Amino acid sequence: MRIAYEHMDSINVGLLGFGNVGTGTYETLMMNRDRITAAVGTEIDIVKILVNDINKKRTIDVPFSKYTSDVNDIIKDPNIDIMVEVLGGIEPATSYMLSAMEYGKHVVTANKAAVAANYDVLHQTATDNHVQFRMEASVGGGIPVLSSITSVLRANRFEEILGILNGTTNYIMTQMAENGLSYEKALKQAQEKGFAEADPTADVEGIDVANKLSILMALAFDHHIHPKDIPTTGITKITEEELKEADAEGKVIKLIASATNRGSRLDYSVKPMRLPKDHPLAGVKNEFNAVFLKGNAVDDLMFYGKGAGPLPTGSAVAGDIVQIATEELKETMHELMEGNKK
Amino acid sequence: MRIAYEHMDSINVGLLGFGNVGTGTYETLMMNRDRITAAVGTEIDIVKILVNDINKKRTIDVPFSKYTSDVNDIIKDPNIDIMVEVLGGIEPATSYMLSAMEYGKHVVTANKAAVAANYDVLHQTATDNHVQFRMEASVGGGIPVLSSITSVLRANRFEEILGILNGTTNYIMTQMAENGLSYEKALKQAQEKGFAEADPTADVEGIDVANKLSILMALAFDHHIHPKDIPTTGITKITEEELKEADAEGKVIKLIASATNRGSRLDYSVKPMRLPKDHPLAGVKNEFNAVFLKGNAVDDLMFYGKGAGPLPTGSAVAGDIVQIATEELKETMHELMEGNKK
Repeated sequence: MRIAYEHMDSINVGLLGFGNVGTGTYETLMMNRDRITAAVGTEIDIVKILVNDINKKRTIDVPFSKYTSDVNDIIKDPNIDIMVEVLGGIEPATSYMLSAMEYGKHVVTANKAAVAANYDVLHQTATDNHVQFRMEASVGGGIPVLSSITSVLRANRFEEILGILNGTTNYIMTQMAENGLSYEKALKQAQEKGFAEADPTADVEGIDVANKLSILMALAFDHHIHPKDIPTTGITKITEEELKEADAEGKVIKLIASATNRGSRLDYSVKPMRLPKDHPLAGVKNEFNAVFLKGNAVDDLMFYGKGAGPLPTGSAVAGDIVQIATEELKETMHELMEGNKK
Repeated sequence: MRIAYEHMDSINVGLLGFGNVGTGTYETLMMNRDRITAAVGTEIDIVKILVNDINKKRTIDVPFSKYTSDVNDIIKDPNIDIMVEVLGGIEPATSYMLSAMEYGKHVVTANKAAVAANYDVLHQTATDNHVQFRMEASVGGGIPVLSSITSVLRANRFEEILGILNGTTNYIMTQMAENGLSYEKALKQAQEKGFAEADPTADVEGIDVANKLSILMALAFDHHIHPKDIPTTGITKITEEELKEADAEGKVIKLIASATNRGSRLDYSVKPMRLPKDHPLAGVKNEFNAVFLKGNAVDDLMFYGKGAGPLPTGSAVAGDIVQIATEELKETMHELMEGNKK
């Protein structure tokens, strides 16, 4: 499915969800509009936004006519080329993505829970319908690790993944280790700063990290492991004593997503691990994320950046949109040129 | 220029140069052949290799018929889709790349000196001839920073670049700072380990880093600054006393490529700088490289990895080949499908 000839003057995007990531995507596309238009060769317009309550007061300035509360105004609109899903949660997000693909739309998502739970069917449905399915923002926020794995690092066999993939838990553990805070105090501080949610279960129990590791393995090892099958331990039982003991050993404790690929055998887990202080991941502090990869040609690599926040995550979603728009428009242009020759 | 229909059963590559990077590229493509073929959808074959002496004994096992000492066997061969230039040096490398583009070939290079000196004409000639021109390996070896800047991070306006871009000088300075070696002893050790060349001038005077900063700015800021116009100071005058003084201040000295983009104004330099020990670049030791970027949406990002070596650099060259092959083959497939419909 390419961008239709009729509306090459703009590429139309429908957005499902207008929370942190949705508004961050909108703002990224607006504030860098000139640069993006120059890169793609045409304008990218968010034409419809699915929200629960179209009359809700919002701080962001968006023409009222863009809002809809009916998902079919996006899924079934033939003028929309790309659907962006940033609702979160496994359902109805997965069903919406599958429907949009069946209606010939490219899909971009930031939704790690939905992708980790349903990677195979989402990937297959995209392939069957000749549409692109991209998910850069689902792992590591703005860090361009998934795109690198699936494109320019493709000439590698990946042997190892080690990641600090959750800003909430990394913030808590940094505060405990460096400022001597108790787990409870550090969690409270993270909540006050907006790094942790009121119900922090998915973060502190490692569930969020297991979702992200599942996606990383699917792309790097070409093998989908359901997050339920990843042995997962969170950070709730780590004591100040353990942190001090590690420090005395010249180590730091981090919540690590770990996976190794030894050809016939994959090993994977999410758990607190002691890292030597000179390990590249040991210096990743507070809300930052990082992914360490080992490829059989490129050797050790690390990607570091902001794993959350409206604009960093919006940057990743917008980057996926730009990639799809550029690639598909190039194909359409070639076809037009071929058509004119005949 | 797309991959010609006639040889969609393989994508043919001509390689100029068979030193460290050339053999690393060949080895990467061989050892990961199955994975690459699956990703691209067809085989990638290096069909011709330009060498000075076709009779030279080599440790790598390559069919003798692939060698040539005439560059026109590659540039003018219509069966070759992609030319890889890893000769090094500004000329004749630049002329060869321009000729290959004019003959409709996509070009991949690892040659920072040629790209930094002639970015504009190389870029324009690629555009005029509808061919791809990729150079991932020219900056940071295997680190996928250039591809990220030009694709998935494209929805950002870049504000700052800070890089440790030369493994030789970073090795020397790490050894001086951590093991108390003099500059002369550290340089000698780097030469013994193969990290420094017999004539280390381009490395220790910062010329190599200025070339790389020129390329980074061209891609991130869309503005080419000739490396001769980048104020450049190397590491030859750094004393053990300065390193100790920095250490006492809680800092480390690194040779830093630095550039900022404040809209109407670009500032750039290559020089030794004092970084606080908790700066992400401060922990980059020995032969490792890293690039720190700030985008107006993604915020702080860092890429870390091996900036040199046959396989890491070969990984980047092979990644560029895979990218070109995947994109161009997709277009050819679409056209074939369209053709069949008619």
